[in-house]
Amino acid sequence: MALRTPEDFIQSIADLELEIYLFGEKVDDYVDHPVIRPSLNCIAMTYELAAKPEYESLMTATSHLTGRRINRFAHIHQSADDLVKKVKMQRLLGQKTGSCFQRCVGMDAINALYSVTYDIDQARGTDYHQRFRQYVQFLQDEDLVADGAMTDVKGDRALAPHQQADPDLFVHIVERRDDGIVVRGAKAHQTGACNSHEVIVMPTIAMREGDEDYAVSFSVPANAPGIFYIYGRQSCDTRKIEENELDVGNPRYGGQEALMVFDDVFVPWERVYMCGEIEFSGALVERFAGFHRQSYGGCKVGVGDVLIGAAAVAADMNGVPKASHIKDKLIEMTHLNETLFSCGIACSAEGAQMPAGNYQIDMLLANVCKQNVTRFPYEIARLAEDIAGGLMVTMPSAQDLFADKTGPWVEKLLAGQCDTPTVDRMRMMRLIENLTIGAAAVGYRTESMHGAGSPQAQRIMIARQSNLPHKKELAKELAGVGLPADEQADKLLKPAGVK
Amino acid sequence: MALRTPEDFIQSIADLELEIYLFGEKVDDYVDHPVIRPSLNCIAMTYELAAKPEYESLMTATSHLTGRRINRFAHIHQSADDLVKKVKMQRLLGQKTGSCFQRCVGMDAINALYSVTYDIDQARGTDYHQRFRQYVQFLQDEDLVADGAMTDVKGDRALAPHQQADPDLFVHIVERRDDGIVVRGAKAHQTGACNSHEVIVMPTIAMREGDEDYAVSFSVPANAPGIFYIYGRQSCDTRKIEENELDVGNPRYGGQEALMVFDDVFVPWERVYMCGEIEFSGALVERFAGFHRQSYGGCKVGVGDVLIGAAAVAADMNGVPKASHIKDKLIEMTHLNETLFSCGIACSAEGAQMPAGNYQIDMLLANVCKQNVTRFPYEIARLAEDIAGGLMVTMPSAQDLFADKTGPWVEKLLAGQCDTPTVDRMRMMRLIENLTIGAAAVGYRTESMHGAGSPQAQRIMIARQSNLPHKKELAKELAGVGLPADEQADKLLKPAGVK
Amino acid sequence: MALRTPEDFIQSIADLELEIYLFGEKVDDYVDHPVIRPSLNCIAMTYELAAKPEYESLMTATSHLTGRRINRFAHIHQSADDLVKKVKMQRLLGQKTGSCFQRCVGMDAINALYSVTYDIDQARGTDYHQRFRQYVQFLQDEDLVADGAMTDVKGDRALAPHQQADPDLFVHIVERRDDGIVVRGAKAHQTGACNSHEVIVMPTIAMREGDEDYAVSFSVPANAPGIFYIYGRQSCDTRKIEENELDVGNPRYGGQEALMVFDDVFVPWERVYMCGEIEFSGALVERFAGFHRQSYGGCKVGVGDVLIGAAAVAADMNGVPKASHIKDKLIEMTHLNETLFSCGIACSAEGAQMPAGNYQIDMLLANVCKQNVTRFPYEIARLAEDIAGGLMVTMPSAQDLFADKTGPWVEKLLAGQCDTPTVDRMRMMRLIENLTIGAAAVGYRTESMHGAGSPQAQRIMIARQSNLPHKKELAKELAGVGLPADEQADKLLKPAGVK
Amino acid sequence: MALRTPEDFIQSIADLELEIYLFGEKVDDYVDHPVIRPSLNCIAMTYELAAKPEYESLMTATSHLTGRRINRFAHIHQSADDLVKKVKMQRLLGQKTGSCFQRCVGMDAINALYSVTYDIDQARGTDYHQRFRQYVQFLQDEDLVADGAMTDVKGDRALAPHQQADPDLFVHIVERRDDGIVVRGAKAHQTGACNSHEVIVMPTIAMREGDEDYAVSFSVPANAPGIFYIYGRQSCDTRKIEENELDVGNPRYGGQEALMVFDDVFVPWERVYMCGEIEFSGALVERFAGFHRQSYGGCKVGVGDVLIGAAAVAADMNGVPKASHIKDKLIEMTHLNETLFSCGIACSAEGAQMPAGNYQIDMLLANVCKQNVTRFPYEIARLAEDIAGGLMVTMPSAQDLFADKTGPWVEKLLAGQCDTPTVDRMRMMRLIENLTIGAAAVGYRTESMHGAGSPQAQRIMIARQSNLPHKKELAKELAGVGLPADEQADKLLKPAGVK
Repeated sequence: MALRTPEDFIQSIADLELEIYLFGEKVDDYVDHPVIRPSLNCIAMTYELAAKPEYESLMTATSHLTGRRINRFAHIHQSADDLVKKVKMQRLLGQKTGSCFQRCVGMDAINALYSVTYDIDQARGTDYHQRFRQYVQFLQDEDLVADGAMTDVKGDRALAPHQQADPDLFVHIVERRDDGIVVRGAKAHQTGACNSHEVIVMPTIAMREGDEDYAVSFSVPANAPGIFYIYGRQSCDTRKIEENELDVGNPRYGGQEALMVFDDVFVPWERVYMCGEIEFSGALVERFAGFHRQSYGGCKVGVGDVLIGAAAVAADMNGVPKASHIKDKLIEMTHLNETLFSCGIACSAEGAQMPAGNYQIDMLLANVCKQNVTRFPYEIARLAEDIAGGLMVTMPSAQDLFADKTGPWVEKLLAGQCDTPTVDRMRMMRLIENLTIGAAAVGYRTESMHGAGSPQAQRIMIARQSNLPHKKELAKELAGVGLPADEQADKLLKPAGVK
Repeated sequence: MALRTPEDFIQSIADLELEIYLFGEKVDDYVDHPVIRPSLNCIAMTYELAAKPEYESLMTATSHLTGRRINRFAHIHQSADDLVKKVKMQRLLGQKTGSCFQRCVGMDAINALYSVTYDIDQARGTDYHQRFRQYVQFLQDEDLVADGAMTDVKGDRALAPHQQADPDLFVHIVERRDDGIVVRGAKAHQTGACNSHEVIVMPTIAMREGDEDYAVSFSVPANAPGIFYIYGRQSCDTRKIEENELDVGNPRYGGQEALMVFDDVFVPWERVYMCGEIEFSGALVERFAGFHRQSYGGCKVGVGDVLIGAAAVAADMNGVPKASHIKDKLIEMTHLNETLFSCGIACSAEGAQMPAGNYQIDMLLANVCKQNVTRFPYEIARLAEDIAGGLMVTMPSAQDLFADKTGPWVEKLLAGQCDTPTVDRMRMMRLIENLTIGAAAVGYRTESMHGAGSPQAQRIMIARQSNLPHKKELAKELAGVGLPADEQADKLLKPAGVK
Repeated sequence: MALRTPEDFIQSIADLELEIYLFGEKVDDYVDHPVIRPSLNCIAMTYELAAKPEYESLMTATSHLTGRRINRFAHIHQSADDLVKKVKMQRLLGQKTGSCFQRCVGMDAINALYSVTYDIDQARGTDYHQRFRQYVQFLQDEDLVADGAMTDVKGDRALAPHQQADPDLFVHIVERRDDGIVVRGAKAHQTGACNSHEVIVMPTIAMREGDEDYAVSFSVPANAPGIFYIYGRQSCDTRKIEENELDVGNPRYGGQEALMVFDDVFVPWERVYMCGEIEFSGALVERFAGFHRQSYGGCKVGVGDVLIGAAAVAADMNGVPKASHIKDKLIEMTHLNETLFSCGIACSAEGAQMPAGNYQIDMLLANVCKQNVTRFPYEIARLAEDIAGGLMVTMPSAQDLFADKTGPWVEKLLAGQCDTPTVDRMRMMRLIENLTIGAAAVGYRTESMHGAGSPQAQRIMIARQSNLPHKKELAKELAGVGLPADEQADKLLKPAGVK
Repeated sequence: MALRTPEDFIQSIADLELEIYLFGEKVDDYVDHPVIRPSLNCIAMTYELAAKPEYESLMTATSHLTGRRINRFAHIHQSADDLVKKVKMQRLLGQKTGSCFQRCVGMDAINALYSVTYDIDQARGTDYHQRFRQYVQFLQDEDLVADGAMTDVKGDRALAPHQQADPDLFVHIVERRDDGIVVRGAKAHQTGACNSHEVIVMPTIAMREGDEDYAVSFSVPANAPGIFYIYGRQSCDTRKIEENELDVGNPRYGGQEALMVFDDVFVPWERVYMCGEIEFSGALVERFAGFHRQSYGGCKVGVGDVLIGAAAVAADMNGVPKASHIKDKLIEMTHLNETLFSCGIACSAEGAQMPAGNYQIDMLLANVCKQNVTRFPYEIARLAEDIAGGLMVTMPSAQDLFADKTGPWVEKLLAGQCDTPTVDRMRMMRLIENLTIGAAAVGYRTESMHGAGSPQAQRIMIARQSNLPHKKELAKELAGVGLPADEQADKLLKPAGVK
């Protein structure tokens, strides 16, 4: 089929009749529910932009499986240039949605599984890779959204999966049948869980003997029997239900996370990509995390662009755009944001080919990228709050602006400079609120902290990848450590030799 | 009268029949309104603790006007020790409410006006100081809460108050009568505006010729005819209206700000403390800001204590309290928090007596204190989010916990460690959410940024107070700058002399 | 005797005929040696200022032992005000010397030993305290400088002192005689070791059974037989030997550290203050460290004042004093410096009386103070380098300025603005170099890091003093953790009650 | 000719008989002078590595002019990959020398002039580009080192070059002759000035009408009549003259800067590349600065590798390599260092082709790179000092280690752990001292601050390149700013549409 339109995407998700719970109740018309819809709009944007000629190079790619033009989100990266374009696509979408747009997880999942299934097959003689290629082609051909589900709730962190008091704390195989397997458990913090056609499940940690039932990777349709979703709360989520859109800040777009429950779900063998190969679980986690840590060097930068722009507009409306400290803060925000982008670009440009043929990002630099993402968006947000002023959090509601008694006073008192209507100043304040302590702060701050692994996870990887012994040798060589004892006492600086 | 009970305080505010607008409508039973009540509970706590023997030394003082025991919030500081106790009282209340408790503004206003009215009288032969002493005694005798109202909406910042297109952008005198004055305008960002008995109004900037009608300070009852309040929105405010309290995080306490409108309000002369003395407007702003910048070295530290505690409990519940990086982050949070406290203590201990007899904080150190408050709470919040984990923002709602279908799954999946019930883990996550991106983040983050003056205001004061010429002299002396030219060329290091 | 003059101090140190080794050779005329003399000049300044009326309140105190006026460096703090004045005295001396002035260690040692000897006597029935009071009175009466020697070289940090391969890695008793003890070992990093009359030795860590010979504290004259000093190298130390003083930067004043060796030194019993009481070793270390961490909130602030002043002068000479980014950097330097001062003041003002009657600083805040000292001077130095410009490290030597061929070119090319002679601009550049990467950087940067304990030592103390359980309780109370299970599901927000 | 050997390079510099002044005197045998030689050794390393097969891909390139293999330092970048390799070559050399290796300036100069001469010719019909290509080919063919000289001493910064009181404050044309021009003035802070064969001069700022004599670019041999060099002082420079090499820290390698004077130097026309074209002066500065800001993302990272390694070795020798806080600090150092590298890589990978055919780095990201370089090396150095311990600055001299009296005590007292000889521990401490407050700190810290432009210069460029209007539009679009007034009041959240 040709690439889907945004409208077709929305309809196709509606057609799935997903089982979604929100505020304790099942939501039937979820694509039209004001709390949920903005998250669908984000993914719709990934379809919309793919159809625009000016974004074709970033938003689409040529499938190495079929040679057909596909949405880049379903692409297996074939070069370092593909990796760079991925990051730029993510920045673009962050700019267009001012939000987590939720389609990256699946992209990173298929790229990690692509090489891991290949490696398993090489080691074990299995045929996971072929199955998985067919699945990827299916996603590409149908232009589908896949969610990548990795994080289990984990329970007692000192115990292995199979040692937990409750086996359901990690997704696991409860039955092996001729035609497939039955799985049970849950995945937490699932970004993109209620707006995907497909779900790709991966184990969440490196596993050891005894964990064979937990070393499982597979895919199922998002509406497979036994799957249901519990929608996570976000700061200010119910503002989306209020009558007027003004107080939402970013009324069209928003992220979401859900708790995804697998209550005995059947998976046919052709959709199983790992089944007990515990020794590959760690590699899958690392490669997926690597790709996803790269992703943040694009998507969060795009959202940062919006926040920098919003702060600049707020400064205009406050009448102080030329104050030197305001200009300097905007420069600092830009500097931090572009540093994140540099990290995203660098780990991509330094990507290398895997035995499976696809390209993997540079592991050290991707972890460095994400580690910065756990810091700089917080400082960018702090500076935005500084520039915006306190009005952002003390401002009357939209209802007050439009009420008879209070309206005229709000109208005249909050009038900004530059001939800005009060309502526009309020909109801009609400957008900054949205990004710094409102709904989008979930994506821009907390997700920057914990998404793709918490800060300490990156530090462990940085330590592992840093080749400290080599650095030690450099230092010893230069300092002259290890010179024979009888040379030390009369060692003169002899400049005659080059070295 | 004796000190009021908390219950009596609530009733007395109800009796005022304040005109408060929320979400576009007038609220009649505001003391029982779930969005507003938490802010009253905070002030009630200032009454409750004042009655407890263990807090008597911090929470009460002996009036220098009457010799009677009074709530410290109505006290005129008589010593550096009083200033130190003020800060410690504020830390205590921050700990007990986990929120901005809103009673400091009035305290800081009376202490600033006390010395400024004295200075005006000395210069102009007026009798403002005597009037004001009587007013302070009234507040003390009746154990009342006063709001201090300073910040105007300001309009075009390049223009003086009297040059604005709309005169109402700054509070100003519209009529001078035999029995008093009539004022008009509005005060924005008013912390403590809907839970005070009295309102004390002060000008917001230094004024110049032509601004005489704007150089006005006075007090009125909070329900004076013509005053009304538009309640400001906060992140997650409507969670307080939801059926279950769990998702609120801190269900009992919360801050608030309001837009306070003066629609032609009459003020009798005995309640007027400045009326056209433009040259004292700047001093009043500086002294009030000085006191209020000191305040933040106490109140925000108390809230910081709660957030550090909450993060530590979350680490326990997550089962990782012994991880070295977790312990180190808690140490860092504590270090930053105690640095703020040190600044609060230092500017107090270095306080000095004014000609009026009361004590003023050290201006340089108070500005340094506040400048740190614009930074460290953000980093403390970031570290709390790091420790808490992503669950804080992806967690299902309280309704999901108690619903038939989803409840059992939520119950078992989110069970923490240490035999913690799931509901308690959720409560702790919601408290951290409340403080970092929820309702209390307004007080802990944005108010830390902009309350008592935005960061740049402190930097200007730091520059003014830093005595740079003295530091330059120190450097020139040590470097030997200015030695006669004929001594330079043969200047030998002569170690014989001491200097 | 009356307080000594600076000249008398220098002579009295010369009279001691200390055994000092520098660059591998014994130095006989050390008070006139250009590398050593600046360190003596620093201590001479503590005598000089004590004689000036304008500094009398800071520089002197009334002995609680004799009622006589003494130099504050020999004072036992009798009040929180004494503690505050100590910090201000240290800031003053930092300003006057632009250097570590080296007399604090002894002051902090006598104040720590004062209370610890008292506590030992209370517990053990010994008479150390009386001995020690007599010794303090001797120091006061003779107006002497005492060095406090704590840090051993430590050897293998995993082993206790008595387990080390070489017993001399910690100072220890090698013989107990009727008239006293004989000690052996060394103390490293000894600030003030070659310009003191007396040496006070203390153990360096908490000790355990088996370490009795190492739990020893005593004092000896600095020239006691068996003591010798190996002078430590500092960055740029030999510039002091060069013909022209210009390139030194701060030609008059400088710090020093030495390795102090005890090669079987006899100590009479009346100068022994701890001898085997292992359980008090830890308390002595903590109290000394506490006082010394407070000290840094004064002395480093004074040096910071000089560096801020030097940067401001450099900006003047570079012709850019009005650039907004320059002004902002000076404000930031001031802000950081005053934050350190606030911490020094706060831990002093919060000081409390010990059973021995003297005053001890607040332990938590003193550790917070020092922790900041391990950070902010580095940032202040970085900003100074930013303002100074690269000339500071690329500038020709003083000889080039005065040489025939190069002199005229250097003279005209490096001429600054504001009618500054080139030589003065060079002097100011060299002073900044001295403080940031030259000799004084040892005191301003590395000593700020490791003096009075390395950063991790403070973090351990902060953790111990932070009362985390109390903070956890605050959080649990506010979040409602621990509500009975049957109240949770139907828990409604009940705003009726105050609490 | 073939690529030179290191020995041949040293000899060829000796053969030039440069006129170098050091400490006020002319140095004749400069290649054997212990202060100067380490700087020659650095450049010799660029020859040595070019000859090694394992580094061929990084260290050499194929000339686009001749097709011959050349040293990459003389290469005109032909692709983004060339730009990436440049950065990696610089990191390698930083690792091998632990120092500024001084050959980058010339490389960056030829790449900037290559495109600017092309652009001038296009605009003015001149033939600078052809001349310059011939000059580049000469450098390549002869395997020469060129110094790039840009920074004038500048005088009064408020005045244009031609308005200065002394015309020599900027290099300028004093005579135009048939065969060439005569220039006069000086270049300050000249890295690589005393170890190059050739000097390439460029203007230092954008110029305006009246500055025509100052808008001049040319090259001359380093020993052209009229050129002389005044060698700049560095921290601890004279340690290189001391008998024993130990205290130098990095005895073989070191950076240098000089003041380069042009006392009426003749330049033939074929070596003139700009002569009065004021409107291209700014572009030349920007492009050169852009390349040089990229460079720092490589060279400083290599030095950072050495410092990280040295700190890790110091931790081993101190016996604490497994302390969690030590490991964490090493991770942080690595993280910061790799962030710098990421910026270097990113601005290279994003490089683009110029009309002249060569590749220019991404301007925004190169400035972001350098801005980080003005910060992170300082923090890396601070952490290194933390790990190293105070011994680094209090340690006795090498002479003390080898002297009869002091030697045995130093030997046993400073013995580290892990069977390290004391002399090796001292060597490692001295290397860290060298890099943080010694000679190499000039390159690692101050040059990181001011080299390639001071921090504020990058901030101005970041502001210019950030496309703030685009970011503002993104924010307005998302917030709905500008909706018609009649739609605002009844604007409902309409989730039906995709957008």
